[in-house]
Amino acid sequence: MQFSKGHGTENDFVVLPDPDAAIDLRAERVAALCARSRGLGADGVLRVAKAGALISTGVLDTLPDGVAADDWFMDYRNADGSIAEMCGNGVRVFAHYLNASGLDDRREFVVGSRAGARPVVVNSANGFLGEVTVSMGKVRELGSSVATIDGRAFEGIGIDVGNPHLACVDGQLTADALAALNLAVAPGYDPGFFPHGVNVEVVTRLDAGAVHMRVHERGVGETRSCGTGTVAAAAAALKFDGADEGEVVVRVLGGEVVVRIVAGEADLRGPSVLVASGTIDDDWWAGLR
Amino acid sequence: MQFSKGHGTENDFVVLPDPDAAIDLRAERVAALCARSRGLGADGVLRVAKAGALISTGVLDTLPDGVAADDWFMDYRNADGSIAEMCGNGVRVFAHYLNASGLDDRREFVVGSRAGARPVVVNSANGFLGEVTVSMGKVRELGSSVATIDGRAFEGIGIDVGNPHLACVDGQLTADALAALNLAVAPGYDPGFFPHGVNVEVVTRLDAGAVHMRVHERGVGETRSCGTGTVAAAAAALKFDGADEGEVVVRVLGGEVVVRIVAGEADLRGPSVLVASGTIDDDWWAGLR
Repeated sequence: MQFSKGHGTENDFVVLPDPDAAIDLRAERVAALCARSRGLGADGVLRVAKAGALISTGVLDTLPDGVAADDWFMDYRNADGSIAEMCGNGVRVFAHYLNASGLDDRREFVVGSRAGARPVVVNSANGFLGEVTVSMGKVRELGSSVATIDGRAFEGIGIDVGNPHLACVDGQLTADALAALNLAVAPGYDPGFFPHGVNVEVVTRLDAGAVHMRVHERGVGETRSCGTGTVAAAAAALKFDGADEGEVVVRVLGGEVVVRIVAGEADLRGPSVLVASGTIDDDWWAGLR
Repeated sequence: MQFSKGHGTENDFVVLPDPDAAIDLRAERVAALCARSRGLGADGVLRVAKAGALISTGVLDTLPDGVAADDWFMDYRNADGSIAEMCGNGVRVFAHYLNASGLDDRREFVVGSRAGARPVVVNSANGFLGEVTVSMGKVRELGSSVATIDGRAFEGIGIDVGNPHLACVDGQLTADALAALNLAVAPGYDPGFFPHGVNVEVVTRLDAGAVHMRVHERGVGETRSCGTGTVAAAAAALKFDGADEGEVVVRVLGGEVVVRIVAGEADLRGPSVLVASGTIDDDWWAGLR
């Protein structure tokens, strides 16, 4: 079984090329593959399959909006083996991998996801380094709410980017003060406002077109990057300065990305790195329960 | 650049076959390779080289006691890029890899390490699973001392297995109570007794030939397994029952191993798993600073 290991702003993935969707991705196997010590180790798995093949093999029931049977589909699995609808950093690595592996030499195409079609542009790609722009779709504001972090209340804006965010821009917050914040404890939030939990971003004010951000992902903890979180942070930072549209460099622990918001829709541009590739031992894989 | 990824009781390694010791293992590259998100991720790197080649290329100044130029040498690097003398779990994976890769088809041979020669017996090996016995050398008692863990004092025995341990057997401790212990904070110890720090094991009393153990490695934190720590734990458990020699199954978070102590010398028998193999991108590697 072939694999590649890569990351987008240090959100890391095992990529499994599987155009015919023939691999049995039962949760126990995904969890063992993503386990840091006893597996290869990753935040998640990106199965590279044709959308139609995922229908034929029963992995998908229906094609999501805008996705054709012949499109590539990012079948994303979390490190615990559960399914996630979308991953903004994952889409970049997915598209870069298609170019780098020779599976697809187009520079513009649609990547299917459970959250719908995600058009991508591969701006540059060699064997290990790529830069990809992903259309992230609509950014919807949900109104104001408050997060409690490190014993302090932060006012923020609820933002839906396919998943719920509470992006808190603090006009007084410096990059150093942000770095010193203790995000080890899950932020407090209003469960009436976010009944399914929320991802929380703490964000500095726009300065020369850039913000610094840290993020606490629901059910995960602090992460080095979160694609949809950078979109929420950019939207909140623009709104803090009274703007609806614009381009924002978002600096996260794992690197930086550029978010462009126009007419309520977001593009996310950022790097992808493919570190290594090879084969997973078939007997090891088959023995996982 | 070829690699394999494997683990011994969930102590995990990137194995780099490099008989001629030609790879430039500067600390920054090792650290990037071992980084969990931006690299392949591992607790350490095992370079598989001939001892003589490490002398020729200047990696080693002299051959350690008992190591010949034609012996295989485990050039071990910690995840931060620094050098470690020995790793009991690493030697099993190292020996298994030599058999599995076809680099050496002998079942008994010497593995060189900076701590000296480590004779091994590969009891069984296929492509992904192996069982290896490693001669760990002398076990020296250093006398009694006390560790403070989770607000409690634990009496223990100082034991030198090439590196210093404080193995604390508690006759009242159950496996459940051990599992509930908070090892997040580094144990307190007597710096006069252990001037270079110490690895601390908390161990249940021998029951039907087996003990449970948890370990806090100096400078690292709690780990899922520590080869020399299991030897120290076995020696302390035998002594707690008034014995100098014997065989002990040591159950750690990452699995179990068997330690045999005879005439003050220890053997460590345990599993090795090789999960995947492949190539590291040369341009990625060359670009690491």
